[in-house]
Amino acid sequence: MLEYCEGMGSKSTTRRADALRSIEAIEQAAAECLGRNPDASLSEIARAAGVGRVTLYAHFTSRAEVVDAAMSRAIDRGNEALDAVDLTGDPLLALARYVEAGWHLVDQARALLVAAQKELSAGRIRELHSGPVARVETLVARGRAEGVFRTDLPIAWLVNVLHTIMHSAAEEIRAGRLTSDRAADHITATVLAAFTPPGKPVPEPGGAA
Amino acid sequence: MLEYCEGMGSKSTTRRADALRSIEAIEQAAAECLGRNPDASLSEIARAAGVGRVTLYAHFTSRAEVVDAAMSRAIDRGNEALDAVDLTGDPLLALARYVEAGWHLVDQARALLVAAQKELSAGRIRELHSGPVARVETLVARGRAEGVFRTDLPIAWLVNVLHTIMHSAAEEIRAGRLTSDRAADHITATVLAAFTPPGKPVPEPGGAA
Repeated sequence: MLEYCEGMGSKSTTRRADALRSIEAIEQAAAECLGRNPDASLSEIARAAGVGRVTLYAHFTSRAEVVDAAMSRAIDRGNEALDAVDLTGDPLLALARYVEAGWHLVDQARALLVAAQKELSAGRIRELHSGPVARVETLVARGRAEGVFRTDLPIAWLVNVLHTIMHSAAEEIRAGRLTSDRAADHITATVLAAFTPPGKPVPEPGGAA
Repeated sequence: MLEYCEGMGSKSTTRRADALRSIEAIEQAAAECLGRNPDASLSEIARAAGVGRVTLYAHFTSRAEVVDAAMSRAIDRGNEALDAVDLTGDPLLALARYVEAGWHLVDQARALLVAAQKELSAGRIRELHSGPVARVETLVARGRAEGVFRTDLPIAWLVNVLHTIMHSAAEEIRAGRLTSDRAADHITATVLAAFTPPGKPVPEPGGAA
């Protein structure tokens, strides 16, 4: 009986390990394929993951689920990258550092975001971004407490403005109206002005120090 | 022969008038149905237009074409409404008037915009907005010439910032994080700050006069 159970356990463990490997491969392939082409098909993703379509459909019931997993994975990786960004000290400089790092993440993920906007609700996309949102909320609250950022608009609105402008820069680049190398400067200059309290001067570029 | 041709002409005229009436009814129904529910089906739209599905498919080959026509119609109506907005005088006040009017149009069309984002490319949505974009470009250029708006960022970027923030307000409302009555104030306060030249003070709310 014990041996039988161990046998089952071992087979079951192998099956689970196989399943986890497949899921991991599919999620990684989805993030890569959709990151190159938002209209990449599930067949392409299965092929890139080295699994059959049947295996893909065994783990993901719809294209939306695959896109959700890919987006979730990209945001987890983004959150790890943002862990390395120093958001302490002068709030203006901290915000500029956040934009510089966050912008590169958005830039890399812009095709994936197009796929997400087609398949997922705005609410779900927002939910997936709760990690980055929480970071900026904390920074904005501190900047307000220090009198550097405006208090006449809600924190949630200011955070929305920042992320909206970062994402719109990705669309401006796709439209050929902005180059990647200028995006961080444009976003920072715009957001620092947008966050300035009424009656106070807009910070000069690079003058935040 | 002449009579025969006249007969043909008359029948053809009737046929064309019928077709134009159907198209007009479908476009109007599409704008209304998609304006209430971005996922409204083509069957619902045909029913609301008082035409059969076959007639709808005779004039529109895809859902994307129907959405495009509905969006185009809403923007044409919006352009007519914007014709009534005075964009002369103090650029700060002119921009506030544009936001007040434009915001209501965006607010009314927000479900339709969701449908458009699902069906149309970002490039096509931008193209459909060329009328409103041209108005703001002219206003921003004048504000820059008068020293009121910043010149360190391109006009195209500033126009993008304005429309991006207006549209994001629509999403904030759908998410239950902003109320319609506060949206115009939030947008105006944010955009006037974002457009302020570095080193100059952000205008006080209502202090633009």
